[in-house]
Amino acid sequence: MAAPELEHLIGLLAKLPTLGPRSARRAVLALLSKKEKQFVPLVEAMETVLEKVQTCPICGNMDTVVPCTICSDDSRRGNQICVVRDVSDLWAIERANVFKGRYHVLGGLLSALDGIGPDELQIESLLAKVRQNPETEIILALPTTVEGQTTAHYLSDRLADCGCVVSTLSRGVPVGGELDYLDDGTLQMAFKARRQV
Amino acid sequence: MAAPELEHLIGLLAKLPTLGPRSARRAVLALLSKKEKQFVPLVEAMETVLEKVQTCPICGNMDTVVPCTICSDDSRRGNQICVVRDVSDLWAIERANVFKGRYHVLGGLLSALDGIGPDELQIESLLAKVRQNPETEIILALPTTVEGQTTAHYLSDRLADCGCVVSTLSRGVPVGGELDYLDDGTLQMAFKARRQV
Repeated sequence: MAAPELEHLIGLLAKLPTLGPRSARRAVLALLSKKEKQFVPLVEAMETVLEKVQTCPICGNMDTVVPCTICSDDSRRGNQICVVRDVSDLWAIERANVFKGRYHVLGGLLSALDGIGPDELQIESLLAKVRQNPETEIILALPTTVEGQTTAHYLSDRLADCGCVVSTLSRGVPVGGELDYLDDGTLQMAFKARRQV
Repeated sequence: MAAPELEHLIGLLAKLPTLGPRSARRAVLALLSKKEKQFVPLVEAMETVLEKVQTCPICGNMDTVVPCTICSDDSRRGNQICVVRDVSDLWAIERANVFKGRYHVLGGLLSALDGIGPDELQIESLLAKVRQNPETEIILALPTTVEGQTTAHYLSDRLADCGCVVSTLSRGVPVGGELDYLDDGTLQMAFKARRQV
């Protein structure tokens, strides 16, 4: 019942993940109540991102420079490629500050249900990178879901022919994890992969 | 660890109600993956709203025209004013399509805890409207919280001197409400205000 321009904006915002019509309406009213302090800076920030941010043609990361900061950083190891599902997983690993190599964004996971096959993902470009430099270590940092593990299996099969080292992240009890609350699968995995101290 | 322009946008989005850093990040990545279909229309819609939408000086509604569509609609009864806390409550009543009078947005509720007194709210302008036209019926559509009821009490005290009719929304069992799940206060109120059928 608001003006059509407002309803249009609320409708567009409501399409974003984690938002719905009610939270979109609250967001718009919050922005309108702080026009100069919040609304104007937000619109400007959006315009800047829309204009400047691009997908890196080498790794698939989003950045304002091409190639992205990570790909053009010579201090990072070029012989380690961490394969991730999407840009948000890449950013999560960067926040943890544990990996100093390069990345490769698949753009999704194999999924028979959703009809996503190998051709929909950035797999050929990964194989091409490995063929160019067979000394590379490939670290598969994919989710431990059915789709994630199917994709990891498929990738290690394809990469086996290239002669490169393929590893995956370790699995087990997460830091701060109460054993009582863990699912059986994780506990079984943690027992199987136990380490001598 | 994303580009500073991206982090800036994520930070601004994370300040919106119901959003946090994680959902802001997901929203930005979703927008970047659908630049033409989602991102460009969203930025355009925001620019339009930022430029056109204003607060109505008469009722406090947000609209693209001044006075707002409701205040300038002659088919709506001018002798009924519905007093609401904020614009989202006004929109909720408009969506229900039950009221064909005018509105008055208070801009908040009296709250000793938050230090909000009568001078922070649009109370004087409401009294001025009533003094100009004492035939007006004032409908207090305020939340049934402590702050809402304090504000309703204060307003009916102040309005009593003006000689206008003051009413509030009825209280009781909501539509679709299971008695078993209702709080004691609502049940007590529903019994006290019972109606003969």
